[in-house]
Amino acid sequence: MAPESGEFALIDRYFTRPTPQAVLGVGDDAAILTPTPGHELLASSDTLVEGVHFFAGTAAEDLGWKTLAVNVSDLAAMGGTPRWALLALTLPAADEDWLAAFARGFHACAAAYGLALVGGDTTRGPRSFTVTVLGEVPTGMALRRSGARPGDELWISGWPGRAALALRHLRGELILAEPFRSACLTALQRPQPRHALGLALRGLASAAIDVSDGLLADLGHVLRASAVAARVDGAVPMELTLAVGEDAARTAFFAGGDDYELLFSVSPDRRAEIEALAVRLDLPLYRIGRIEGGPAGAIIDGAGQPYAGPHGYEHFVP
Amino acid sequence: MAPESGEFALIDRYFTRPTPQAVLGVGDDAAILTPTPGHELLASSDTLVEGVHFFAGTAAEDLGWKTLAVNVSDLAAMGGTPRWALLALTLPAADEDWLAAFARGFHACAAAYGLALVGGDTTRGPRSFTVTVLGEVPTGMALRRSGARPGDELWISGWPGRAALALRHLRGELILAEPFRSACLTALQRPQPRHALGLALRGLASAAIDVSDGLLADLGHVLRASAVAARVDGAVPMELTLAVGEDAARTAFFAGGDDYELLFSVSPDRRAEIEALAVRLDLPLYRIGRIEGGPAGAIIDGAGQPYAGPHGYEHFVP
Repeated sequence: MAPESGEFALIDRYFTRPTPQAVLGVGDDAAILTPTPGHELLASSDTLVEGVHFFAGTAAEDLGWKTLAVNVSDLAAMGGTPRWALLALTLPAADEDWLAAFARGFHACAAAYGLALVGGDTTRGPRSFTVTVLGEVPTGMALRRSGARPGDELWISGWPGRAALALRHLRGELILAEPFRSACLTALQRPQPRHALGLALRGLASAAIDVSDGLLADLGHVLRASAVAARVDGAVPMELTLAVGEDAARTAFFAGGDDYELLFSVSPDRRAEIEALAVRLDLPLYRIGRIEGGPAGAIIDGAGQPYAGPHGYEHFVP
Repeated sequence: MAPESGEFALIDRYFTRPTPQAVLGVGDDAAILTPTPGHELLASSDTLVEGVHFFAGTAAEDLGWKTLAVNVSDLAAMGGTPRWALLALTLPAADEDWLAAFARGFHACAAAYGLALVGGDTTRGPRSFTVTVLGEVPTGMALRRSGARPGDELWISGWPGRAALALRHLRGELILAEPFRSACLTALQRPQPRHALGLALRGLASAAIDVSDGLLADLGHVLRASAVAARVDGAVPMELTLAVGEDAARTAFFAGGDDYELLFSVSPDRRAEIEALAVRLDLPLYRIGRIEGGPAGAIIDGAGQPYAGPHGYEHFVP
């Protein structure tokens, strides 16, 4: 029999790590995992495709980080603790330097958020990555999109729009000055899933989603799932308007995707808890509007008019 | 807000079904699932890429079946019961007829094996599919690759090699006559994961694997994981040799992948139970050799010589 070579050797070398969180990890037909009693299991998959979600030539280490981070973000939006990941890696060729860098970024993100890589697949083909992340939440405590109620206030974490501005910078459409440029590039290339915020919102937020398609597009998902409308007052964080002007800031804030901030709704009588949370987590939390009765999914501006701002990005729009 | 369109409408239309097995299925940031107390969780991902794992132009309904079936097979090889699946679908365009047919095949396989589709992702890009399947097994009962012991007998289910012969037929390299041709094409296009066999082998087989890379290649995985060698006697099922002759049958049987039969080892004093199982499941189970001491991974033939037969397929072999 030939020694371990090709696909299997690559997997062994870069992706097999001790997995104290698993009974059995990479290297059998399936991983064997032990769920925590009293918890529900959370499962989510996201795919990144070269030329669609990232430029050819993007640093492999950043891709390794981001391909896991965007999945951790989905669990953060549910108030879940990530535990295990499976990585399906499709590559045009086995480039060892590339793989080593990708694995470094992936494992750095896994370590930062406490996940074990327990399985996956390696195939030849056009470059793309699908991660499935599994996590846990105490039974009944998951944050859903469907719990927003009229009167709840709408909040957003961080500064969504920075990733979209970084993309425009990389395309040469606008110029960002330091240190704002670095902050935007980090938001695009090394997004920080709002894990601690998601945990803190359990029992506090009525609904939550992570902003991947754009603030208004993702707000629309919450509103339709909750069968409510929303009023959004239109203010944009000063940090963005000072850097790129009102129009570019507004478009990036409301329509830019890929930031992985959390958008959530909270009863107004718990506003002080949210403000205390912003201090404790050292993370800005902006109140951007409130949930109202009205047609499911409708968004009106501060003047009560249908919101005319830019929306988000969708694949396969006809 | 625009009505549901594009990506989201497609997902809704073809992939959202009632999910009685999930607390919350498709349509939030993550699915919420309830593990069964006293069980371990099994998780596995497999990717199919156009031009690598299937020809461009393969019937979408067959692809929908197969992309799930190959994952169910991984759980069968662990003795697990499949419960939930996540589907990451990457497509160059949103072709509604294609999607409807793919969904039909996928849901048919899900219904046949009792799974609920609970999540996934839809992205634009070169055609590929990654399924993550989650299943359960009573704690401590999973079949692993690492349990084979010297003296155990080696068994294979069904007729591996039929999928490889179908591929050669489709390539025009040989001609298969009916009804064997149909049986081979079904093995390639609509593989039947050996779910019932996997369940029956719990507490009976010492090790198991599903044959996706080829019988000898996958045997090699078992031998290395178990740190043992094997003697394989070289007999090939008569059904194959009568159809295509000794040489083509031997190559297909020992090196052909993609059949998803189970290869497993069992103590010789339990041979009668295996023979009874073949009758009960109406599934041929062939004894092809036995586990021996010796260099981990070594395979010798009936005459005691290093096995010189054809091996299996690997991606990324240098």
